[in-house]
Amino acid sequence: MRKVKTLGLLGTGVIGGGWAARALHFGIDVIAADVKPEMEAWMRGAVANAEPALARLTSAPLPPKGRLSFTTNLREMAEKADFIQENIPEQLELKQRLLGEVSRHAAADVIIASSTSGLMPSDLQRDMTAPERFCVAHPFNPVYLLPLVEVVGGAKTTQTTIDAASDFLRYIGMHPLHVRREVPGHLTDRLQEALWREILHMVNDGVATTGELDDAIIYGPGLRWAAMGTNLIYHLAGGESGMRHMLAQFGPCLKWPWTKLEAPELTETLIDRMVEGTQAEARGRSIRELERLRDDYLVAIQQVLRQYDIGAGSTLRALEERLYRDSDAQTPAADLDAPGPLRLIDTTVRPEWVDYNSHMTDYRYLHVAGEAQDALYRLVGIDDAYRRSGRMFYDVESHVAYLREAKAGEPVYMTTQVLDVDDKRLRVFHRLHRRSDDALLSHCEQMHLHVDTAAAKAAPIEAGVRARLERLRKAHAALAVPAAAGRGIGSARA
Amino acid sequence: MRKVKTLGLLGTGVIGGGWAARALHFGIDVIAADVKPEMEAWMRGAVANAEPALARLTSAPLPPKGRLSFTTNLREMAEKADFIQENIPEQLELKQRLLGEVSRHAAADVIIASSTSGLMPSDLQRDMTAPERFCVAHPFNPVYLLPLVEVVGGAKTTQTTIDAASDFLRYIGMHPLHVRREVPGHLTDRLQEALWREILHMVNDGVATTGELDDAIIYGPGLRWAAMGTNLIYHLAGGESGMRHMLAQFGPCLKWPWTKLEAPELTETLIDRMVEGTQAEARGRSIRELERLRDDYLVAIQQVLRQYDIGAGSTLRALEERLYRDSDAQTPAADLDAPGPLRLIDTTVRPEWVDYNSHMTDYRYLHVAGEAQDALYRLVGIDDAYRRSGRMFYDVESHVAYLREAKAGEPVYMTTQVLDVDDKRLRVFHRLHRRSDDALLSHCEQMHLHVDTAAAKAAPIEAGVRARLERLRKAHAALAVPAAAGRGIGSARA
Repeated sequence: MRKVKTLGLLGTGVIGGGWAARALHFGIDVIAADVKPEMEAWMRGAVANAEPALARLTSAPLPPKGRLSFTTNLREMAEKADFIQENIPEQLELKQRLLGEVSRHAAADVIIASSTSGLMPSDLQRDMTAPERFCVAHPFNPVYLLPLVEVVGGAKTTQTTIDAASDFLRYIGMHPLHVRREVPGHLTDRLQEALWREILHMVNDGVATTGELDDAIIYGPGLRWAAMGTNLIYHLAGGESGMRHMLAQFGPCLKWPWTKLEAPELTETLIDRMVEGTQAEARGRSIRELERLRDDYLVAIQQVLRQYDIGAGSTLRALEERLYRDSDAQTPAADLDAPGPLRLIDTTVRPEWVDYNSHMTDYRYLHVAGEAQDALYRLVGIDDAYRRSGRMFYDVESHVAYLREAKAGEPVYMTTQVLDVDDKRLRVFHRLHRRSDDALLSHCEQMHLHVDTAAAKAAPIEAGVRARLERLRKAHAALAVPAAAGRGIGSARA
Repeated sequence: MRKVKTLGLLGTGVIGGGWAARALHFGIDVIAADVKPEMEAWMRGAVANAEPALARLTSAPLPPKGRLSFTTNLREMAEKADFIQENIPEQLELKQRLLGEVSRHAAADVIIASSTSGLMPSDLQRDMTAPERFCVAHPFNPVYLLPLVEVVGGAKTTQTTIDAASDFLRYIGMHPLHVRREVPGHLTDRLQEALWREILHMVNDGVATTGELDDAIIYGPGLRWAAMGTNLIYHLAGGESGMRHMLAQFGPCLKWPWTKLEAPELTETLIDRMVEGTQAEARGRSIRELERLRDDYLVAIQQVLRQYDIGAGSTLRALEERLYRDSDAQTPAADLDAPGPLRLIDTTVRPEWVDYNSHMTDYRYLHVAGEAQDALYRLVGIDDAYRRSGRMFYDVESHVAYLREAKAGEPVYMTTQVLDVDDKRLRVFHRLHRRSDDALLSHCEQMHLHVDTAAAKAAPIEAGVRARLERLRKAHAALAVPAAAGRGIGSARA
């Protein structure tokens, strides 16, 4: 099969637009064919809409973007393309006719693939010239971001075609899943369709709304499914004996009306296949090890969703607001006059904070300092209401020194010493310590400037906040000024 | 209903252990009852295993942890608890008998809830004293991390019970989903069960392995389901006219054998309910707006999974390795002698990099500097092989100054100037610029120390790397030394 420089698209729409955006981003030229000339503008719009997200997918160096061209002439597309992807409506006869036509214009070493959600490749390749170079390559919306693509061969498809198509799909960042047997709906859509039809039944029966049924997934199983499928997840739920225990415990439920779909008989053969399959998936990892991996990604995903205030991330936000409220209500005012420094952050080094050395990445030290700084602000009365009133401290300088490594999972704490306060400025010194032996891991000097956010310029600190900061400064004045404070790079290591 | 200070658990196991870990973490005492005394040690182990992940869920201030006690005496538990959660096997008669017994020992203002996956609350409350304080509270494994809990009342349950149970569940960080109608399997397990039975059919029919079927979800739909359910996702796939278009386009597929589950008739009433439901979910947000939100979280989740090298994250890693290989193969050697500074990073400010001001958070400036530093290392020949040989540069000091704000989505680039190189040390100066007008947003001076990672001490830079760094230093020597270089906090703003 030939090297792919130009991807030909037969049909446009949401799926065609997604293919175009993905291919162009990774340096492949695209020629899109559609009988409707107005689809050119639509297509360019779809590519432009995809770009902001695609641009953030990776910061690895990219080749120059591919060029997009458009034609209403199917033959022109077929002659110029090195790989053709069909994305027309799910009508068997229509697909057969157009795939046949394209195959007569495209050279025999050009792969022709169909985006069909569930039609059978053997049916689709029926009227083609050189049908051995045809396969299904079924992507998922948004095609430019989701890696999954099901690759399915028909009766006449060669292994060379499957391999070459998979190589190209990997080149543009996808995960080709070879579906070894033709079935209507392939694999993914059979699973999605079962869930979807059960939804339709429940809405039809008046049991729940679409929103309740979506919530039933996104706050629970959906979080797990981002990285582990039902089978591996159930293997974990079965405790030490995994899937076999799970099937023994929940096997009887298969006879209960927990869905309108009847289950197959749970024969010994089926049990063995489920157990062998999940053991292969575990790749020698223990249940405990897999549980840790699952827990790690569940925590990390919820923290990502928290930033977008969506689904489980909104739940986490609401919880944190409650925890801060409760904590603020209990913070004794006397704390401000304690000899200091303040110990505002007790945490552990998160697995996603470490780099290839399994040590905490440099910018995460500053991340923890930011959490200490936020806690300091809450302590002196800077809350959401204060920020909404258009006043805020901005960090204007940070000087971090890394003294010792912090390892994933290590308990650490941060102390904060107030060095200086004036009308508009606050200078602090944070120290990160290991909890086990109090060893100093890092220190960070910071200058913060109080601003009027609407005017975007420096402005005096509110009197009450200023007074509380002043109490802290006085209480901390008895502490030694850190040797590193005020020093430049190369002379600031304590 | 009374304020919950002590949670009583009836039955232990994976679900009971998960409830205990969650409640204790958020400051609730737990008394667990199980007839088998050996379950005490098991329970304490389960709580300990949950702790590392739970500890990382939030850095918000937590109350002191709750205390865990254990008894084999069901009555003792029922008398001490303020809220009782039952987690025994899914056998109706057994649950009825023990729930009845517990209800006779617990005061009438103590809520009793069942973790049942799918039994009906009206059946479960049949033999209880004060059955109005009973409800189902169905959690998901791992209970200590997943927020979803289905709350279902039976015929005798009062709204007060539903409300009070939901309040407590929210207090311990969960998302109570009120299931308004009793059906076997509630909502979530009906959806999961449909998918699960379709899996069993496919394994039974020899179509695919459990691993292939798990992959069919985690690289595609599973990523979407972490924050948007099937209904909202299909609403987005329908283009500007949303769910109505989607049903018109894919309605015919409901008659096709894409799963063994038969769909209900797609009547006008059902279509209207689906459309109204998804419109309510959209809450006035346009398709384009929801697409952006979906794209943002899909990118962010893949980046999190990349750190764990799992699922779509592994695909992203493989793609990046290929991109770096291709880029390295094309980097002309002459670059090292160009007048400089180097422009190594061109990127956009990612939505997850901004804080409540929608400006880039301070530690993310250092994050981008780290990416520039990594690119510099690749340029001078420090690759994975070099690191595996036990040599590496460590960042020992960073001094960042924030001059102007960077907004989400803003295109930016970073330049890197090599200031000094000696046997073991490398000093660089990074500058972050806005792409639109080249305005300087931030600068960052850094000192890096070359180390022997096994010995954990400073060691000479490898000769070839040193020579390439030296060429860069010479080429950059003609540039002005930045005014801020070497200065301390308060005097380093350029």
